[in-house]
Amino acid sequence: MAVTIRDVAEASGVHVSTVSRAFSAPHLVNTVTRTRVLAIAEDLGYRPNRAARALTTGRTHNIGLIVADIANPFFPPLIKAAQAQARMRDYHVFVADTDEDPQVEEELIQTLTKQVDGVLLCSPRLTNRTIERLREEIPFVVVNRRVKGMPTVLMDVGRGVRLAVEHLTRLGHRRLALVTGPSGSWTSKEMQAAAAAMVEADVTFLGPNPPTELGGLAAVTDVLASGATAVLAYNDLVAIGLIEGLAARGVDVPGEISVIGVDDIVPGRLSRPKLTTIAMPTAAAGRIAVDLLLQSVDSESTGGVTVLETSLIVRDSTGENRK
Amino acid sequence: MAVTIRDVAEASGVHVSTVSRAFSAPHLVNTVTRTRVLAIAEDLGYRPNRAARALTTGRTHNIGLIVADIANPFFPPLIKAAQAQARMRDYHVFVADTDEDPQVEEELIQTLTKQVDGVLLCSPRLTNRTIERLREEIPFVVVNRRVKGMPTVLMDVGRGVRLAVEHLTRLGHRRLALVTGPSGSWTSKEMQAAAAAMVEADVTFLGPNPPTELGGLAAVTDVLASGATAVLAYNDLVAIGLIEGLAARGVDVPGEISVIGVDDIVPGRLSRPKLTTIAMPTAAAGRIAVDLLLQSVDSESTGGVTVLETSLIVRDSTGENRK
Repeated sequence: MAVTIRDVAEASGVHVSTVSRAFSAPHLVNTVTRTRVLAIAEDLGYRPNRAARALTTGRTHNIGLIVADIANPFFPPLIKAAQAQARMRDYHVFVADTDEDPQVEEELIQTLTKQVDGVLLCSPRLTNRTIERLREEIPFVVVNRRVKGMPTVLMDVGRGVRLAVEHLTRLGHRRLALVTGPSGSWTSKEMQAAAAAMVEADVTFLGPNPPTELGGLAAVTDVLASGATAVLAYNDLVAIGLIEGLAARGVDVPGEISVIGVDDIVPGRLSRPKLTTIAMPTAAAGRIAVDLLLQSVDSESTGGVTVLETSLIVRDSTGENRK
Repeated sequence: MAVTIRDVAEASGVHVSTVSRAFSAPHLVNTVTRTRVLAIAEDLGYRPNRAARALTTGRTHNIGLIVADIANPFFPPLIKAAQAQARMRDYHVFVADTDEDPQVEEELIQTLTKQVDGVLLCSPRLTNRTIERLREEIPFVVVNRRVKGMPTVLMDVGRGVRLAVEHLTRLGHRRLALVTGPSGSWTSKEMQAAAAAMVEADVTFLGPNPPTELGGLAAVTDVLASGATAVLAYNDLVAIGLIEGLAARGVDVPGEISVIGVDDIVPGRLSRPKLTTIAMPTAAAGRIAVDLLLQSVDSESTGGVTVLETSLIVRDSTGENRK
């Protein structure tokens, strides 16, 4: 059975509140008593509670995790993995959602600074300059953005784009469209750079777009006007929106247009046609980001970039070019 | 343009840091200076920042929102609506996920207590007794559980079950199975009570089950053994798992067995067959819960129950009984 504060009080011959203060407000307890109480507590193997420990160590044992949109199924696997990893290290995770709004993002970081030991910033929409300024207040790890001098976890979406374009060119597609994401998105920029470097295909860039099904729906007219026979979407939600919008115009996927998403979220596996997608290692990213963050909390971090591999999952939304 | 701390300092003839202390650490500023600074600040319409306000009002302007599983698509619409409502009132929301674990839930509540002004507890797995004890520490609003003397937001799942059973009996089904949820779930108990009260059909209860696709997959054998021609699942994820599991055994939905879910999550609209479901008013619940919580923060609350209406959405996973 766990040793309680009462056991320590009894063994020390003091009141429970004195034991509590010895841990949480040591300046209120005279030195001799405090020293005796702490020694007895250690002998008995007593662990003060989390709040008391926070006061003695200066740690909250909480991590903040900021995401662009909690309703995007991309984030839950990352959040769950980060949480499990944090819990193993006796940390709790508070999640905050910025609604894709850089100003809300900055406010949330400043609010969290006082409540947590470090912040995981996932798919930020803030500028690098702002992130660099904020990092002076609290340790950060950034996921899905390269920020100089900060620990960063990236998913190699460029490789995914190359695999996707190769897959499409093998199917005979030469005119592609890339439906890009929000303007602040590092992933979107990486996708554009990787697609622009491919010589096998002629890629039209359409965007920026909201990273949602509605973003995909709204891009349908431009996709049809582009003459592309295959589309690479910023993420699976956009791809699902595109497929819905194309179906509403009587355009068959993959019969007339092939569509590839990014992320490998659950709805993409359930939709019809099942979505061909660039799978992002979100759970691994969550785990690794927590480890890096707790390292930063324990010691000054000098940055460093971890790049995780992506892969192409071919399902039913891509097919041969018949034009 | 907003009045800044510099404007107040200049008009008061003191240093910026004195203005800051007048708000955040008034005991460090002599009374005459402090009174002048605060009067000038008020004249100019200066609003001290959030942290300073927290110190003067004793409020953090944060709310905690605890959910059973952030990866369940049931929660994001509730979280987003709660967030939007909180933001309108100048509050931030921290989300924490209990992984369906009552012990983690209790820990998270205790951790959040020191960081927020109130807690929204959604679909708790704790006992009512524990929740009643914890409420002495912080204002609570409970969603999806009736707890005596506490402000509560419920969704009338009983009405949904009655509509679902009527829909199924009109289609000729007489032998139903109810695949129940986790043992701590109030919603699951309400569903069982409502189904047991229906005289039109003979209902077999199968459970408890994890509220996930895997829970549905695992229940397939029992469903087939029950001889039921229609199944009501604890939620849409369980229903989707059931449909997958039935398909793997070569059982057609709705040809051989009809399936109804609960929640109306996005994946249920994308799956094939599209899911017939009891729609839960999650966004309304999130908005109303935040309003009730902020009322509790402002004044002692005496409880009160808000019941929101549910409805049946008929799609493709239910059909006529052909047995």
